[in-house]
Amino acid sequence: MPANVHALILAGGAGTRFWPASRARRPKQLLPLLGGEPLLVETVHRVLPLVGGLDRVLVASGRHLAEATAALLPELPRSNLLVEPVPRNTAPCIGWAAAKVARSDPDALLMVLPSDHHVGDVAKFRALVATALASAARGVVTTIGVRPTHPETGYGYIEIEGEPGAAEVLAVRRFVEKPDLARARAFVESGRFLWNAGMFFFRAGTMMDALRAHQPALCQGVSAIANAAAAGAEAETEALERLFPGLPAVSIDHGVMEHVERLAVVPGEFGWSDIGSWQSAWDHAEKDAQGNASPAGTIFVDARQNHVVDLRSRASGKRVIALVGVEDLVVVETDDALLVVPRARSQDVKTVVERLKARGDDELT
Amino acid sequence: MPANVHALILAGGAGTRFWPASRARRPKQLLPLLGGEPLLVETVHRVLPLVGGLDRVLVASGRHLAEATAALLPELPRSNLLVEPVPRNTAPCIGWAAAKVARSDPDALLMVLPSDHHVGDVAKFRALVATALASAARGVVTTIGVRPTHPETGYGYIEIEGEPGAAEVLAVRRFVEKPDLARARAFVESGRFLWNAGMFFFRAGTMMDALRAHQPALCQGVSAIANAAAAGAEAETEALERLFPGLPAVSIDHGVMEHVERLAVVPGEFGWSDIGSWQSAWDHAEKDAQGNASPAGTIFVDARQNHVVDLRSRASGKRVIALVGVEDLVVVETDDALLVVPRARSQDVKTVVERLKARGDDELT
Repeated sequence: MPANVHALILAGGAGTRFWPASRARRPKQLLPLLGGEPLLVETVHRVLPLVGGLDRVLVASGRHLAEATAALLPELPRSNLLVEPVPRNTAPCIGWAAAKVARSDPDALLMVLPSDHHVGDVAKFRALVATALASAARGVVTTIGVRPTHPETGYGYIEIEGEPGAAEVLAVRRFVEKPDLARARAFVESGRFLWNAGMFFFRAGTMMDALRAHQPALCQGVSAIANAAAAGAEAETEALERLFPGLPAVSIDHGVMEHVERLAVVPGEFGWSDIGSWQSAWDHAEKDAQGNASPAGTIFVDARQNHVVDLRSRASGKRVIALVGVEDLVVVETDDALLVVPRARSQDVKTVVERLKARGDDELT
Repeated sequence: MPANVHALILAGGAGTRFWPASRARRPKQLLPLLGGEPLLVETVHRVLPLVGGLDRVLVASGRHLAEATAALLPELPRSNLLVEPVPRNTAPCIGWAAAKVARSDPDALLMVLPSDHHVGDVAKFRALVATALASAARGVVTTIGVRPTHPETGYGYIEIEGEPGAAEVLAVRRFVEKPDLARARAFVESGRFLWNAGMFFFRAGTMMDALRAHQPALCQGVSAIANAAAAGAEAETEALERLFPGLPAVSIDHGVMEHVERLAVVPGEFGWSDIGSWQSAWDHAEKDAQGNASPAGTIFVDARQNHVVDLRSRASGKRVIALVGVEDLVVVETDDALLVVPRARSQDVKTVVERLKARGDDELT
């Protein structure tokens, strides 16, 4: 493993697909959706051996999420929490992290990872990361591509150059946005397309060069913020507040990756999922012999394949949840909401969120 | 209406059919199962115009229920709450009330009513009660019998003497225990059987005479308790504690009614139900156009014929319940439990209660 490796975990996202578990102020990455630790915490544990310590873990977050994020990672140095004053998509934040790392060591390696995905085979994942880091150390921006198991229309794809399976690291021909089903099928059949899991590996200096070439304003802004940090936390905050909101709101894919000449991908299968739905969360959650995923102590009587999530605060006291004679339900409890929905209908939860907003119950969304 | 009419409402029952709504310390009669007031409070309101005031309403309760019962009826004189030191079935309690009333006026009329039934047509019910009271005033123990709508095996039956429909008040031939389905069918087809709704009407003196004849020990005991009451509440409590536990634990049906020579019944239909199951509770609850019975503010998205009961204390704060894409479910929330069960499976809730007891969670049962 190269000596100086840092991880940037992107934890600023929001969404309502997991309402009432997920909220504007408590998005998916902060939740233990699979029954163990919150997804963000699992992500940190997954990369810790690869970077050597929490001092080399950067976590990007939004202002409204900073406190809850810091609470989940009490040993993370506060200066490693990159709090974006306003959401500006991924490129400014990744640029900020790259500039921060490059300032002390342009040869340091940086891996950028989503905070809310699941990895089933952690050992395999770490081996792929080591390969990707070795590629990045050679000055090539590198990604990990997931070998598709089905024609998923919910993911972006990466097309490779040359022969699939020719090497551990392949050249990238192009990034492709979410396809329709026909294209997705063709992609999977061709064997030349991988799922884009949003993981990037690069030398800090390589990224700064790429930004300078393709996003000069962004490069200038994040460099100025990183330079201000040398004068202390106060100066960094001042520069951040002044400069960050003016940075172009562009994704790293569109703003940088599509323009970089040499891009590499490490293909692999490692039980990856973006946990994009209750179906996916249940697929990957710990379950009993009847297929029920639930907190300890839940009582099931002739009930199968249900998913019970209890996010009520401990202050609520002792409590039992009992499901009798039901199947394939999702039951979510929080301090201020209860949801009951068949797993196959869980996308309709967005209608609940719309109704709550329409009647002015914004604090419940 | 006769001048001096009292009501005794039997509110000492317990059961687990409505768990987690109903508990050992919060039985069905204390719950607003139909969406309005608790069943006991509805029962009191139903009889109030018939007796003229709360001072003539007696409520029989158990020791562990006394506080919760009194809290629901804050204007009930405390001495009108008959707290049984130990459960001794219905005859001792009814005898106690009869002795209490007879002591000041043996000609006073007493009606005995269950606390946990539903009456759909209150005006009709009150008219039937007036007829039954008039019969009772003539010295005949009288009951109201519900004309059966189907061969229910969950109720006891009353067989009449003579021709059905011959008069407003008919003679009773016999009381019959819960029959099997074949007998129940024959009962309904005969036109000579009525459901026993557990309502009795009598002169206080008539009941004391009947007790003296058929339950002499019981008669002596309850008379002594009533006499002690003349010396004050403390003397009454002392006599109650000393004598009540020794009274024979016998039902009014077995101990008295089966032995009384002249028994009359007033047949009628008045939308009666004993609310013996979640199915029955939903049948009689207030529902929206989609057949959902629920607290105000519940959100339903493509959800029909569900029954949502929220008994959480107000201290739990603002909260929303959302059901999406489900039908015919019962969802019950309390401070310490959540139940989800299809209405058709709700009898299996007893298995949940057994499991809770088996694992020592007695406070949840």
